[in-house]
This record gives sequence, C-alpha cells and structure tokens, in this order.
Amino acid sequence: MAKVKVAVNGYGTIGKRVADAVALQDDMEVIGISKTKPNFEAQVAALKGYDIYVPETSKEAFAKAGLKVAGTIEEMIEKADIVVDCTPGKIGVTNKALYEKAGVKAIWQGGESKDVCPISFNAEANYDQAYGADFVRVVSCNTTGLCRAIFPLDQKYGVEKVRVTIVRRAGDPGDIKTGPIDALVLDPVKLPSHHGPDVKTIMPHINITSAAIKAPTTFMHLHVLNIKLKKDCTADDVKKLFQSRPRIKLIDGGISSTAEIIEFGRDLGRSRNDMWESCVFKDSVSIDDGELYFFQAIHQESDVVPENVDAIRSMMKLEMDNLKSIEKTNKAMGIGL
Amino acid sequence: MAKVKVAVNGYGTIGKRVADAVALQDDMEVIGISKTKPNFEAQVAALKGYDIYVPETSKEAFAKAGLKVAGTIEEMIEKADIVVDCTPGKIGVTNKALYEKAGVKAIWQGGESKDVCPISFNAEANYDQAYGADFVRVVSCNTTGLCRAIFPLDQKYGVEKVRVTIVRRAGDPGDIKTGPIDALVLDPVKLPSHHGPDVKTIMPHINITSAAIKAPTTFMHLHVLNIKLKKDCTADDVKKLFQSRPRIKLIDGGISSTAEIIEFGRDLGRSRNDMWESCVFKDSVSIDDGELYFFQAIHQESDVVPENVDAIRSMMKLEMDNLKSIEKTNKAMGIGL
Repeated sequence: MAKVKVAVNGYGTIGKRVADAVALQDDMEVIGISKTKPNFEAQVAALKGYDIYVPETSKEAFAKAGLKVAGTIEEMIEKADIVVDCTPGKIGVTNKALYEKAGVKAIWQGGESKDVCPISFNAEANYDQAYGADFVRVVSCNTTGLCRAIFPLDQKYGVEKVRVTIVRRAGDPGDIKTGPIDALVLDPVKLPSHHGPDVKTIMPHINITSAAIKAPTTFMHLHVLNIKLKKDCTADDVKKLFQSRPRIKLIDGGISSTAEIIEFGRDLGRSRNDMWESCVFKDSVSIDDGELYFFQAIHQESDVVPENVDAIRSMMKLEMDNLKSIEKTNKAMGIGL
Repeated sequence: MAKVKVAVNGYGTIGKRVADAVALQDDMEVIGISKTKPNFEAQVAALKGYDIYVPETSKEAFAKAGLKVAGTIEEMIEKADIVVDCTPGKIGVTNKALYEKAGVKAIWQGGESKDVCPISFNAEANYDQAYGADFVRVVSCNTTGLCRAIFPLDQKYGVEKVRVTIVRRAGDPGDIKTGPIDALVLDPVKLPSHHGPDVKTIMPHINITSAAIKAPTTFMHLHVLNIKLKKDCTADDVKKLFQSRPRIKLIDGGISSTAEIIEFGRDLGRSRNDMWESCVFKDSVSIDDGELYFFQAIHQESDVVPENVDAIRSMMKLEMDNLKSIEKTNKAMGIGL
C-alpha cells in the first residue's frame, strides 16, 4: 500500500517533532516541511533529508544560507494527502482556505481555537470521531494530559467532578523571548482558565474546572488534580489503572521535580529528551476524604506528537481501532520504554 | 587484543556520560559503575546493562528497589585496569588510597585540586604527558574549553596574553538544590578566579587571567575571550583555524544564546543533547585594535567526556598519536557531526 503523504506546515517546537514521528511510521511519510527562516532548525531539517518548502519571499534568504529549497508552501500542500499545521497559534486558522482550495485534509494544534473545525481529538478518548474526517484539531498538551487521566477513570469509576490547578512552564527551553523571569503569573485572573473546560471538546459530559498559573520554568507543566469519582476505589486501584494505560508513565526513582523527569528522559536516550507520556508521580496518587488526588507533569513540547500520528491514521482510515493505532505509534516512537 | 577494563566510580552528570562514551569505543569496555542510591539514574544504568556496584551499606536499599547489585565498589575496582573517578569534587581524592592499594590506574575530574596527581590533561595540548601514566586529572569543563582555543592559537600565532570573563551556569538542568534563583554572583570577588590560571596546569607558559560570575541558568557556561597574539592575523584566519580543530564547533544559523545551542543539540539527536565541542559563536570572532575577541559557550555536562576517553587511551598506551585518538573518540561518539 502506498504510504500516506504528510506535509508539516511549520517546523518549530511541535512541527519538527511531528515530522520525526511521522518519518518513523511505516504507513505514512513526510513529503515536506515548511520553514520561513534559514535558521539552525532549517539546517537540521536539511541534514535529516526533509524537503524544505518556503514562502516565495524567503527563497533568497535560503539560497544565501546555502539551503536547498524544494518549492513554495503552496506547492508542498498540493503534493500532500494531509497537512499537519504546526504554525504558531492563531496563524493556523488563516491557512484553512489554502487547505480547502487544495482539497487536502488538515490537522491543527491546540493553540488554535476549538472553532477552527468541529472535531477536537484525543487518541484514547475519541479516535472514532475523527475517522475519515477532513479537518481535526489535536487538543493542547495540557488538555491531552487531562484527557489521558480522566478518560480511563471515567470509564472505570465514573467521574463526578474534576478540579485541576495547572502550574504552567512559561516558555520552552530554546525560547529566549518569553517571560516572566521571576514571578508567578495568574493565567488568567478570572476563573476558570480555559484548560479544564477544553476537556469538554473531547468529553462534553465531564464536570471540570481549572485554575492556571505561569511559573518561570521551561521543562514541563505540572497538574495538581482532585477528582471526585462515582464509585469507591483505592489509591492502588488507580495506580494499576494508570499503569495499564498506553500513554501514562508512573514516575518514582526518587524523582520529585519536573527537572529530574527531563533528566530521566535524557538518560533514557529519548529523542530531544521528550517525555511523550503523561508523567504521574506514583507516590502522589492518594485518596483523601473519598476523593482522588495526584500530581502529573506534562511535557509541553512533545505529549501531543503521538496524538498527531494517531489523528492522521484515523482521518486517513489507516486503522479503525484506536488502541491498535496507539500501540503502533508507541512502538515506532519508543513510547513506554 | 583484549579490551581495556574501565570502571566508572560515581555515576552522576559526568560518570554516566563517561560510561556511555567508553561503551561506544572498540578498544575499551565498561566493567562496572558505582552508585550509592537506587534512584532513576541507577534504574537507567540497569536498563543499559551496566553492572552496578554499591557501598556495602547501600545493598539493602538497592534490593528493596529491585535493582541487582554486582558487588561492592572495592570489588569493582579490583576487576578494573583503570578507574575513572567521577565522584563529587573533593571526594575523589579520598579514593586515591583505594586505587593505589588495588594497583589500578585512575583518572580524576577537574573538580579535584590539581594536587591530586602531578599530571593534568587535555587531549589536544598535552596527551603525551599522560602516556603510560598511572594517575591523571582531566581538567574542568571551563579549562578544557580554554585549552582547546588557546592551544592552536598559541601554536600558530603565539599567545602573549589572555583575558577571559566566564559567566557560569549556576547549576545543571537536573539539579534542584543549587542556586541562585535570581542574582549574579561574583565567583569569587577577589580576582583572578581559578579558571584561567588552571590553564597553566596544561600550558605553564601561557599568561592568562580570569574573572568569573555565576548566573541563574543551567544550559552552558559562556566565555568572553580577549587574546593578544604575537603575530598578526585576521578574524577569518582565526575562524579557519577553529574550523580545522577537532573539538571546536563554529555556531551560526541565527543562534545568539546558550539556550538555542542546546536546542540545536536536541535537534541534532545528540545523546542527552550534549555539545561536546567548544561552541564558538562564528560572527563574534573579531580583531579590534590588534587583539582577538570572541564568545564561546561550554557545555559543562559533556565537554570533558571525550577527554576522559583519550586520557584512558594515553594512560593505557592504546595509541601514541593524540590526533588519532581524538579522531577515534570523535567518530565513535558522533562528535563533529
């Protein structure tokens, strides 16, 4: 069977990872990536052998930098079966007309509004909804992390109420422009934050509220979860449930910080030290006064990457069973090792 | 020929990297690593298949954590031809009697005083001095970075005077105990700092002074160099000279920070995002009023790692020619790619 032709529009934090993850699969291939500036990321894209497509106005700059250009972004889109749009948040929506004109399917990221298309996506919770669809939005890193925890809990015990406090990393490690350097920023002041309610784009029946704070760190987001379940269970039951999920990793080994989780990822030899799984701190899982509590850390740069691969598989009808797609993606990427 | 048996005593930031680098060589092997706590680093060591040796008093904790122990640290040392001591600074010297008693060769790191043994080491500058030696100290990350730049400049143009300002990363990425969070710390107040003069343990004739400041960052150290050369040359001459060296990487691609260099390392697929080379900012290399100026970034976690491999090769008489050893080490580790 011919491989599905995937174009990655926008080769930044998420785009470069999606390209590498797609390249590892045997049922899809990267036919090109787009870049606007001939910076070090473009140099590495060339080293990896990706065809680089650029805006007409960038051609001269790429030539000057000695980087070969395969064509314009429009030309890339025409060659693709599906485009993964990883352009910065709120820019992606402006590309929609381009995709519609070319008659290609498209995936947006969680930085876009839920209104960019009718279907928001999480591989474990609603893979079926995206089956054969033309347009899908993979929800944000935080929403992805929340869905991965809430979905199995809801299936097994029923979820009555979720309260989550999200302490967000303020910027990514390679980002030298974003602050704060030294402050905790209410994000936003008026409650709730959009993060928890965004879960409803995947699971509309979940009663959830969230508060968010930005902290001066780059490694990961941290969630403090409080969940009221409908049926009784023990902390050990929840640990076993989480252990059985394909994209939750229970963290122990003396680790009590996001910094050490990333160090763990480096030691494991993960590509870019990525922690694609939700990282639940094993010893934090506890039941107090009948309610479940735990901490989980979410790697903002990478946790949505395997979700994009599964979304492609669902939209292109490569696999009907979500757990089979997840297993295939995980195996190719080394998730769970 | 039988491979040289290397024991790595201390499996932290440097030790785990030295173990991985030794394991990549075809003329030496890791016969064991030592660890005092069964933390995530020990878990990964076990995953990688290293034999783990522990203090007698730690055996119970390792058993409890389900980690297999191969024996005591003393037993590991007896099996080795050479020990790379990567225990914390000032602890290494206390192990010297142990190595002498077992009759094994040993390498210490730059965190130890230069008085731990008569020979300090840099692969490019004084490989010959370590040839067949029993005890060698690989100089610190900063001194290594300075030697790599000063040695070829001195060979080609003669160095009359070096002035360096070192802005140090305060802690490593996985370190959650070291500060400052928000301050620039004079390190120390009284000039010069030990960094520049430590170069004299390798090249005694170099006239050098240094000032150091600690900054709240974890990625890399940054050197601001001012060098008065004896013979005239242009900035392009220096760039070409640096380009020709095996462990200097000229950095461009729009990069103006240590954060972006590490991001570059992640994108390149480097193990633990390590930048083993001195990273000279290409566009910073300049001549002003007859003196050379440039910035270089030094990856404190990894730049000494290939130096340790070359030190083993010299001490064990595996290779007489330093450039051949460097080339062999570089090729096995992927340095220069």
